[in-house]
Amino acid sequence: MTASTSYHMTPDEFRTFGYAVIDWIADYQARVATLPVLSQVQPGEIRAMLPDAAPSQGESFSDILADVDRIILPGVTHWQSPNFFAYFPANTSGPAILGELLSAGLGVQGMLWITSPACTELETHVMDWLVDMLALPQKFKSTAAGGGVIQDSASSAALCALLAARERARQFSINRTGEAGQLTAYATAQTHSSIEKAMMVAGMGRERLRLIDVDAAYAMRPDALAAQIAHDRGAGFTPAFVCASIGTTSSNAIDPLTAIGEICQREHIWLHVDAAMAGTAALCPEFRWIHAGLELADSYCFNPHKWMFTNFDCDAFFVADRKALIDTLSILPEYLRNEATKSGAVIDYRDWQISLGRRFRALKLWFVIRHYGVEGLQHHVREHVRLAQEFAGWVRASQTFEVAAPAPLNLVCFRHVGGDAVNQQIMDRLNTSGDLYLTHTRLDGRLTLRLVVGQTHTRAEHVRAAWERIQTEAAQVTNQWPFVEEIRQ
Amino acid sequence: MTASTSYHMTPDEFRTFGYAVIDWIADYQARVATLPVLSQVQPGEIRAMLPDAAPSQGESFSDILADVDRIILPGVTHWQSPNFFAYFPANTSGPAILGELLSAGLGVQGMLWITSPACTELETHVMDWLVDMLALPQKFKSTAAGGGVIQDSASSAALCALLAARERARQFSINRTGEAGQLTAYATAQTHSSIEKAMMVAGMGRERLRLIDVDAAYAMRPDALAAQIAHDRGAGFTPAFVCASIGTTSSNAIDPLTAIGEICQREHIWLHVDAAMAGTAALCPEFRWIHAGLELADSYCFNPHKWMFTNFDCDAFFVADRKALIDTLSILPEYLRNEATKSGAVIDYRDWQISLGRRFRALKLWFVIRHYGVEGLQHHVREHVRLAQEFAGWVRASQTFEVAAPAPLNLVCFRHVGGDAVNQQIMDRLNTSGDLYLTHTRLDGRLTLRLVVGQTHTRAEHVRAAWERIQTEAAQVTNQWPFVEEIRQ
Repeated sequence: MTASTSYHMTPDEFRTFGYAVIDWIADYQARVATLPVLSQVQPGEIRAMLPDAAPSQGESFSDILADVDRIILPGVTHWQSPNFFAYFPANTSGPAILGELLSAGLGVQGMLWITSPACTELETHVMDWLVDMLALPQKFKSTAAGGGVIQDSASSAALCALLAARERARQFSINRTGEAGQLTAYATAQTHSSIEKAMMVAGMGRERLRLIDVDAAYAMRPDALAAQIAHDRGAGFTPAFVCASIGTTSSNAIDPLTAIGEICQREHIWLHVDAAMAGTAALCPEFRWIHAGLELADSYCFNPHKWMFTNFDCDAFFVADRKALIDTLSILPEYLRNEATKSGAVIDYRDWQISLGRRFRALKLWFVIRHYGVEGLQHHVREHVRLAQEFAGWVRASQTFEVAAPAPLNLVCFRHVGGDAVNQQIMDRLNTSGDLYLTHTRLDGRLTLRLVVGQTHTRAEHVRAAWERIQTEAAQVTNQWPFVEEIRQ
Repeated sequence: MTASTSYHMTPDEFRTFGYAVIDWIADYQARVATLPVLSQVQPGEIRAMLPDAAPSQGESFSDILADVDRIILPGVTHWQSPNFFAYFPANTSGPAILGELLSAGLGVQGMLWITSPACTELETHVMDWLVDMLALPQKFKSTAAGGGVIQDSASSAALCALLAARERARQFSINRTGEAGQLTAYATAQTHSSIEKAMMVAGMGRERLRLIDVDAAYAMRPDALAAQIAHDRGAGFTPAFVCASIGTTSSNAIDPLTAIGEICQREHIWLHVDAAMAGTAALCPEFRWIHAGLELADSYCFNPHKWMFTNFDCDAFFVADRKALIDTLSILPEYLRNEATKSGAVIDYRDWQISLGRRFRALKLWFVIRHYGVEGLQHHVREHVRLAQEFAGWVRASQTFEVAAPAPLNLVCFRHVGGDAVNQQIMDRLNTSGDLYLTHTRLDGRLTLRLVVGQTHTRAEHVRAAWERIQTEAAQVTNQWPFVEEIRQ
């Protein structure tokens, strides 16, 4: 080997192999509906196909791609199948995938404005677009005192919000009492587990997260929140943070923002609003009621990587007071100092997140918004909600199933009237069949099935087929003659 | 519009536009060396070219791609230029980009084993490969009590390590004294800023990070560490965490692991080792001395996304005791429960990181390792080190420049003997020219230039041209006749 030896892929080789991967994905998109949604492998099965040691010498790209089919594909749970109804979706689209590809090809770091000005400025700009697209409060715009930033997930957004709240509360507490009080935070048992994790990470302690009672719709009870805050103040704690959910993971419950926000304003508590999946619905004017009261929030996030056709990771996180966030997260060592930063005329997004490094994630969001246009996005979101509502109607009309919680948007919680064991069997049989994938929650202690309509390519026929399969399995489980209700209209 | 209206890209459209993006990247790779490395735009210049509002109606993909050239490209600082010598590299390669593309195309979530078994098992397996490839301690393997996981960055790895250390120290402290002591952590002023940030995030307080004195090579002094620990114990603190660096960002200083590790073992302190860039050197047996003493560490990370041709984000984080990490980070709500998790036979990587969601990042690492083979990776790492050493030799032989710190691998810290103002001017002129990009640090209070050889396509001619340009600018700044030393051999 000499200094001129190269193992790198040349641009021409990249073109050839790149076409091959594009073809592979296009073919995958065309056939994914026919693959078993939930991977059917056993633990260890994939690893057993992999060689013990890394290869000493390079292998051909066609061999690598063949192994994707042979080794990887059987171990994939197909989140991009139109028959995926589990968890919350993590949907993608052609323009998003190509935006991610371009981001990888450019390979820039967006930690500072100067390390790629376009990475920062496109992100700031597209975040401002989103404020208008969802009719969010104008205070979340970079042109006001706030601003948006792409986080990898709603977990990270919640952690950043909690940290800013922690610092504000400490400051406030120090000013008033001379020492930092013990800080408390508030959510419901329906709130995403990332809040409890954030409390642990931030050193505030899981036990200081107060779980507020919910009403019959699994939404936070403002009176219970106010009572708990008063109780904690009386006990010497400093209430610092409330997380309200717009569309809980469990049942899409919508916490009442106006009442909660008024309490937070009165009590000087940071209000963070997590609309991870449901926020996307606000693209459509008829669903914007979910955000009523959002003008009282200090921070807000939703995930275009859930329901807005933008592949993970892309959480859109907004703050009303960017200074509070930056003051919390900014550390500037010598090797990152530069004139642009010193001038104060630019945003350095490393001060808006936990990590230093960051990809050019705004590209995929920009591609998605421009490819679909607002009208295209609205159309598909509306259609998903319509299909979920249709499904809820079939459940309500059924004699053997019941709707278990309000279904305001695209998630339907439902269960067979036969009890937990029956529901568990129905779910296991459906998921093992590979025909569709759905997951469960517990509501009032009862096992409840969840069906989310949010995968990019889910259409009426997939939801219809799912309902037929659910009924068939239920009949099998309960040893009744299959009773498939008439659902075609 | 009807229910059958679709704004989605069809597989065939995806194929067409996908080829176009692949072509764009291949062309970019072929011409990137000719583009100004540091973007030359002014703050706000990119945003000014973007429309105020998102488009109502979708636009053609060719219009979008044309705007990448027109709007985005001028605002890109070219991290993938062979003339990029700044910061630490964030290098990429053909196989890595295509692995990222495939990951986006599959669009799976790897939060739980069951949400895509291949995503988890390939990651575990490739992490084990890396242990052998770098000759790391076997205890970091998943087949021992440890294991590896891909984090987005060394910042996140350090935070996870710190959290596990915090919990272990609290447990230990509670057992011994009945209450959690005040926890302290240790690093040097040369340690990456992410440690200070992690202290803030974890609620341990920046002021509890003790900065230990360094020796003449900017490496941690074990005697000073031991003294500070003793002092803190005497003052009622509980020392909990030491971060040692293998290759600091400032000057590639290498902290003495054996001496530090022995102190940590004796004092029951968690030792985290951050080898973000330099760790990759251990692919080559002749550079493995940098890891001497690593068997005493509790956790370790290096970034294949810096110097191992795998695009960001890909930090390889290893722990010796995975239970300590999982016990710290695990929270399991009902909607994530499943049989595979309950059986304990699988890894759920959500318990190894801050966020819940995660991409299929092992694919790109697998592609890179298989495409290059270990020998290919070794070749290019060796070549980078050789070029940096050659550059250091030119600096040492120069009458106007001096080497400012030991240069053990691929980073050379150097400066003009004329002082800070001269060095600042040289750097500004070079960076403004667009011919190359380098950044600075401060060593002993003096402005020092840094040249890192780590970009994928940096070859001898690029380093040679950089040295010529540096000398030319120095001569201009100091008003001397250009004096270019004879460097061609």
